[in-house]
Amino acid sequence: MSRNELTFSGVIAQLEPLRYTPAGIPLLSFELEHQSQQIEAGETRTVSLNLPVLALGEIAMQLADVSRDQAVVVRGFLTRRTVKSSVVVLHATAWKKELE
Amino acid sequence: MSRNELTFSGVIAQLEPLRYTPAGIPLLSFELEHQSQQIEAGETRTVSLNLPVLALGEIAMQLADVSRDQAVVVRGFLTRRTVKSSVVVLHATAWKKELE
Repeated sequence: MSRNELTFSGVIAQLEPLRYTPAGIPLLSFELEHQSQQIEAGETRTVSLNLPVLALGEIAMQLADVSRDQAVVVRGFLTRRTVKSSVVVLHATAWKKELE
Repeated sequence: MSRNELTFSGVIAQLEPLRYTPAGIPLLSFELEHQSQQIEAGETRTVSLNLPVLALGEIAMQLADVSRDQAVVVRGFLTRRTVKSSVVVLHATAWKKELE
């Protein structure tokens, strides 16, 4: 079975206004500003990464009500922005506010 | 707690020879050719995505023995290739052969 499952936390940034697709589906795009400590080959390293996120449907409407600078955890799958693009985008399928 | 956890399956491609960092740590880089069906806003969509993977240490030596075209599932965390790069890389921390 093919797997493509990312759990990613960060602060909401670059939040764009809620839009609608031509088919009338709510669409929200933003970035998650992420920083974490990761262990690799026995060494701890700091990872800083801004990842574009796209939300479609019900989850777009929920996230549109969340304030900028809110820390959240988003789950979803990765795609390229377009077929030829080098930009990787997280498509949100679930989310929650991150506990402090 | 910060989360950055990707589970990603695909076929090993662009497998480079095992190298060593200046500190003597084994380093392997390759790409995973991924295709899956994902459900978003109630619709099924096909996702095709080649993702660069980097393995350091013990896991690099294990994966260097796996043949090209082998289907695997890799777990790890995402970083950018360099601070300014738009290329997102999966750092492998665990892997297994994918069951057919």
